[in-house]
Amino acid sequence: MPKAEILDPQGQAIVGALTRLGFDGISDVRQGKRFELEVDGDLSDDQLAEIAESLLANTVIEDWTITREGGDA
Amino acid sequence: MPKAEILDPQGQAIVGALTRLGFDGISDVRQGKRFELEVDGDLSDDQLAEIAESLLANTVIEDWTITREGGDA
Repeated sequence: MPKAEILDPQGQAIVGALTRLGFDGISDVRQGKRFELEVDGDLSDDQLAEIAESLLANTVIEDWTITREGGDA
Repeated sequence: MPKAEILDPQGQAIVGALTRLGFDGISDVRQGKRFELEVDGDLSDDQLAEIAESLLANTVIEDWTITREGGDA
């Protein structure tokens, strides 16, 4: 997600559109990216953090979080 | 997120880059969008679903899910 201090004009446009459409009470919208990684092997939290930092996120303007979800296998 | 039957070339490029960087065991990556809405008033699940369907997601090619997170207020 864009850092709090980074302007997000697209999110602001969505707030305006939602208000025009009659959805009240939405004070802020931020648009960011989401990556779903299907991991077969074992990746440590440190490795996942390195992937997020080095490849997926632009850490100058974006914050990132990692969530592990249960696999089907 | 892009539907399962939709090709995601950017995700595939990430799989290739991660493998080249030495992160093994990643079989698939899908890239999608994430919107964080700050809601002051009361929005029902139906209203949130309508927002996702009508404004935020392109339902021809994208699936969407809604997660409510606890507010600070």
